[in-house]
Amino acid sequence: MSGNRFGTLFQYTSWGESHGPAIGVVVDGVPPRIPLNEADIQAFLDERKPGGSRFVTQRKEPDRVEILSGVFDGLTTGTPISLLIRNEDARSKDYGDIKDKFRPGHADYTMQAKYGIRDYRGGGRSSARETACRVAAGAIARKILTHQIGEFVSISGFVAQIGPHCADPARYDPAQRNENPFFALDPAIVPVWEDFLDQTRKNGSSAGALVEVRAKGIPAGLGAPVLRKLDADLAHAMMSINAVKGVEIGAGFGAVTLSGADNADDIRIGEDGKTPMFLSNHAGGVLGGISSGQEVVVRMAVKPTSSILTPKQTIDANGNETEIVTKGRHDPCVGIRAVPVAEAMMACVLADHWLMHKAQCL
Amino acid sequence: MSGNRFGTLFQYTSWGESHGPAIGVVVDGVPPRIPLNEADIQAFLDERKPGGSRFVTQRKEPDRVEILSGVFDGLTTGTPISLLIRNEDARSKDYGDIKDKFRPGHADYTMQAKYGIRDYRGGGRSSARETACRVAAGAIARKILTHQIGEFVSISGFVAQIGPHCADPARYDPAQRNENPFFALDPAIVPVWEDFLDQTRKNGSSAGALVEVRAKGIPAGLGAPVLRKLDADLAHAMMSINAVKGVEIGAGFGAVTLSGADNADDIRIGEDGKTPMFLSNHAGGVLGGISSGQEVVVRMAVKPTSSILTPKQTIDANGNETEIVTKGRHDPCVGIRAVPVAEAMMACVLADHWLMHKAQCL
Amino acid sequence: MSGNRFGTLFQYTSWGESHGPAIGVVVDGVPPRIPLNEADIQAFLDERKPGGSRFVTQRKEPDRVEILSGVFDGLTTGTPISLLIRNEDARSKDYGDIKDKFRPGHADYTMQAKYGIRDYRGGGRSSARETACRVAAGAIARKILTHQIGEFVSISGFVAQIGPHCADPARYDPAQRNENPFFALDPAIVPVWEDFLDQTRKNGSSAGALVEVRAKGIPAGLGAPVLRKLDADLAHAMMSINAVKGVEIGAGFGAVTLSGADNADDIRIGEDGKTPMFLSNHAGGVLGGISSGQEVVVRMAVKPTSSILTPKQTIDANGNETEIVTKGRHDPCVGIRAVPVAEAMMACVLADHWLMHKAQCL
Amino acid sequence: MSGNRFGTLFQYTSWGESHGPAIGVVVDGVPPRIPLNEADIQAFLDERKPGGSRFVTQRKEPDRVEILSGVFDGLTTGTPISLLIRNEDARSKDYGDIKDKFRPGHADYTMQAKYGIRDYRGGGRSSARETACRVAAGAIARKILTHQIGEFVSISGFVAQIGPHCADPARYDPAQRNENPFFALDPAIVPVWEDFLDQTRKNGSSAGALVEVRAKGIPAGLGAPVLRKLDADLAHAMMSINAVKGVEIGAGFGAVTLSGADNADDIRIGEDGKTPMFLSNHAGGVLGGISSGQEVVVRMAVKPTSSILTPKQTIDANGNETEIVTKGRHDPCVGIRAVPVAEAMMACVLADHWLMHKAQCL
Repeated sequence: MSGNRFGTLFQYTSWGESHGPAIGVVVDGVPPRIPLNEADIQAFLDERKPGGSRFVTQRKEPDRVEILSGVFDGLTTGTPISLLIRNEDARSKDYGDIKDKFRPGHADYTMQAKYGIRDYRGGGRSSARETACRVAAGAIARKILTHQIGEFVSISGFVAQIGPHCADPARYDPAQRNENPFFALDPAIVPVWEDFLDQTRKNGSSAGALVEVRAKGIPAGLGAPVLRKLDADLAHAMMSINAVKGVEIGAGFGAVTLSGADNADDIRIGEDGKTPMFLSNHAGGVLGGISSGQEVVVRMAVKPTSSILTPKQTIDANGNETEIVTKGRHDPCVGIRAVPVAEAMMACVLADHWLMHKAQCL
Repeated sequence: MSGNRFGTLFQYTSWGESHGPAIGVVVDGVPPRIPLNEADIQAFLDERKPGGSRFVTQRKEPDRVEILSGVFDGLTTGTPISLLIRNEDARSKDYGDIKDKFRPGHADYTMQAKYGIRDYRGGGRSSARETACRVAAGAIARKILTHQIGEFVSISGFVAQIGPHCADPARYDPAQRNENPFFALDPAIVPVWEDFLDQTRKNGSSAGALVEVRAKGIPAGLGAPVLRKLDADLAHAMMSINAVKGVEIGAGFGAVTLSGADNADDIRIGEDGKTPMFLSNHAGGVLGGISSGQEVVVRMAVKPTSSILTPKQTIDANGNETEIVTKGRHDPCVGIRAVPVAEAMMACVLADHWLMHKAQCL
Repeated sequence: MSGNRFGTLFQYTSWGESHGPAIGVVVDGVPPRIPLNEADIQAFLDERKPGGSRFVTQRKEPDRVEILSGVFDGLTTGTPISLLIRNEDARSKDYGDIKDKFRPGHADYTMQAKYGIRDYRGGGRSSARETACRVAAGAIARKILTHQIGEFVSISGFVAQIGPHCADPARYDPAQRNENPFFALDPAIVPVWEDFLDQTRKNGSSAGALVEVRAKGIPAGLGAPVLRKLDADLAHAMMSINAVKGVEIGAGFGAVTLSGADNADDIRIGEDGKTPMFLSNHAGGVLGGISSGQEVVVRMAVKPTSSILTPKQTIDANGNETEIVTKGRHDPCVGIRAVPVAEAMMACVLADHWLMHKAQCL
Repeated sequence: MSGNRFGTLFQYTSWGESHGPAIGVVVDGVPPRIPLNEADIQAFLDERKPGGSRFVTQRKEPDRVEILSGVFDGLTTGTPISLLIRNEDARSKDYGDIKDKFRPGHADYTMQAKYGIRDYRGGGRSSARETACRVAAGAIARKILTHQIGEFVSISGFVAQIGPHCADPARYDPAQRNENPFFALDPAIVPVWEDFLDQTRKNGSSAGALVEVRAKGIPAGLGAPVLRKLDADLAHAMMSINAVKGVEIGAGFGAVTLSGADNADDIRIGEDGKTPMFLSNHAGGVLGGISSGQEVVVRMAVKPTSSILTPKQTIDANGNETEIVTKGRHDPCVGIRAVPVAEAMMACVLADHWLMHKAQCL
């Protein structure tokens, strides 16, 4: 019911506003006796942390996580794990203008329409700051997957396109992911994106991006045939990330123009003489809503940041027409920092489905 | 938890296999004192019903719905509404070959991997026959919306593309929707699709489709800012429909190449002097996860039917490599019959969010 | 959310009114590959069935169950199991008087206050007829427990007191349970209860009862320390049975007068040299909300039937004061037929907790 | 699913261990624009706070609550309210002995059996310290009830019996509740309980108690006819409180010996000429699972504290038989501090049902 809770067996409840004293997340349903410490979580928070390059927001937040419960002698105990992250660089004055004006492309108007009140400081609950909680929960989800399935499980995302500029899959090199400010796998696209985003910022505008996440090592059997299809849950999770406007799995929208003969992935027996081996992966690792053992492949469209210096027409809380320019410290391309968030959401969905699969309960 | 249950306040639980004695759905959370009879539901089932043209499966199912509970003197009572649909034309012999072989592109292998048993007759629980239950539930969802919000609420879908052939939005005429076997709004595309699908069937193959659904008359305020974003729930619902591989809202994947200045929809005051009027709808009616009062616009990619006469490589339940040709009565383009299902799912999501909005509980 | 759904992993959704065409239940979360047929369920329905003696209602219902889905080749498939029971002896004319008058002690007034409409025929959704669905679901719950834990698991209930007449535990003989119309274990109390109930009926009144249910063979570890305590879930389940007004576990209300030294059950090592053996069972098999491996013991107070021939003061739907005599075919002591229902609810709670325990998910 | 979450629309998730750095609770589903500050919550925490008299534990905890989110300008915003309470007087050395030995009557053995690990310090997650979170959540629940229904709503509990010594309802005076260390309404029983508990402590033992809670001003219509009966939810909530072994509503176990004619509460029209007026309240304010507008009356049995100085037989983690004496700072009668907790749980259940009733969603 809660709009702030994720999951069925692996669950988290996130809370906090952009400019309140802190944000946090309570992670529940974690099996007992899994090694966990703050550094396990911090590593992923650091990837999402603002201020890492000139292509992301300049807000300075250490995003240091504290574990307040659920871990004893370095092991999870099966009880809820409460994580706390203090907000330290909340400059509310930057946002004075948005107290009364509704920023186009933002939740300002709709939050007011829904609740009749909103913490307008930094977007309050609608701020992408909340995604730090998702990354923290995702770090625990990864621990479950690697501890219970195996260290070979990996969930890794990257930016595939910024504005009109596509990376070239032929040049993808996973080792490049951490060598540039874009989570790009194609080193040749990096200077193109740098120039494009520098120009975009100079224009007082922002850019959209295409993000892809892949999970390797996921066994067959996760998901269910009707309403808890694995891909349906992935679509929900990805579309719940701020600024995401589209989600596809495997061939995705490309499947519209494929023939049935080309789209269905042929099956052979793998080298071990028993595991199915698929000759292609148009399915994106999910057949009939259930994982097939192939790589799970999801892509999402991230819209350009709506907080821009270009003046936009809008209205204020009193119903007057006006204009707004959104100052402050904003990401020129939110798609970049969406990468660790999308990875985290995939980890959370897979951990939840893994536990349900193990429990034979779906 | 259940993989067969939809919703939070407006809920349904579906059950039944393709070739069992019946399928059905229990719809709960329906407010009391709403007029409802079997004809209200039958009208929508008839749209989804197989056998309507040569472009859909030739299985003959009247799909006649019986209301077994929850309605008294023609009004809902607030108690669960149980709906039953008998299976009448289940020719299990047609499917003998799939008992032991896994059809590529289908759930056969993954269902076996998950449960260690499967009702292989007609795909069992994984069959799209289950979507009749969704359409029945959707008919009740529509009643809630029109009874409580107003008769002006409408949810209408159409096919926008089949294979490589796109309809032209400039020619869209809503009155055309029921005048052709494709739920097409563009009359000029109809003969193109007829030829294309006739040829596709002759080739023993099948075709993908792009389906769009629009909801008019939805008030601002439905949804929530974090994990129950209206668009996230819509993405889940649409991706849970058989054969759907991608979902987008508003500008969707097109937003990747838009600039922030172009993408954010400018806001003015409407003719009534108070309601916001948006100058474009890249948002697809949802801002920050909450409806804005604009038209809600969702598109989805439907893959080509995997049941085809073209031989495909596969394996059998004993781990031997083999080949399969899927005979039987199949849709050459499942995207067509996906239209009433997608409408129903949008109605269900909106009814659920409407009730949560009214309850101020999200 | 739904008020008609039970459980977390083992779940059921019940539907139907006393005098509608049918009642039924959709049982979901049943692990695959468990043998199940209609006879497994029918045996328990027959225990609850009306008309078995002069001490229960004379309504004649065969309560024949049909399995409509979820079972294939005699085995569960992991998909929802839909069960249907037709109503065959609904004499709506018997109940004409209650259309406008609210029966004291019944849900008539509160249903009207809540929904503004009610199916008054036989109590509609508030009728104890719904408990047939619980018994059917409970039969499946038992199959899960015996199939997965062992055939030694048993859940057995009995009547311990009717009106002021208590059975004597010193004379309890489990073999007596099916040898009398009361589910009594003490044969000496049977004639006392017969005389008492015959007299009660002659007086146009009804009697309360104390029902006890015990579960043997339940392993340690079911439950959780805070809000999903096993005893809390049992209390919920038992109190949800029509006419139950109190629930206690182990020493129950008797614990108020025990000293801490007497109440805490001493622990020794059992004969196998490792399993804990408790020297008493004041805890009723649950410590800190988690099963200890001892017998789980629950008792509940069942109020006297409110449908009696003695005239009672009441009001009608128009707000006028009036009087009512409830004719029709009613149980003089609903506590008797509550026994199989209470057993079923305990089976459902234990199956649900067993699955959660096995899944390590609570 | 989570064992640490309460509620459907009004919800909370509690976390924290007795001797960890902090405990806390995230309260979600609170309607927007309700005035709320820390003092509103602190007042109730102070009632439950340890150290108030010689009849409760001597642990010194200020139980100072911090609001970390969900409140803006003194009003709730509809987003989750995170509450934090630091643990300040955790003397882990007091509990060294229980690291390896299982205390009879406690969750030590069952927690180990369930999770294979436990934070043994002060009982960890099983400690009644967690109930501070419930009291904090309950304070917010009360705000919802009084803000939305009216200031006349009151939820008040008291101790009715300690060991064998019953208070006399004929002498009940609500004004006495805060004038003695027992939440007693009968001033004449106070010295009796003082002497009894002083003697009990000298004997190294502890005492049980009977607690009663009453809610006034609750409108008719809260609850539902089948599995979300208001009394079933109350039974669950009360039985989930540490040490509670029995729950009854209205006449409760006393209903077993009442005749149907005596038990059903006659109905007349009240002074306003329209509201039903019941001539007695054997129902305890709930008919067929739905509130009737009468006072809601619940009683619960609280077992004597299991932490006592009297030596008890037990086993250790290695399976050896041994003996244990539980030193430390324990309540001689936990029933006393259970009063504010039971009130809080009733407030939470009623707030949840109130929101569901308002939403017409059950």
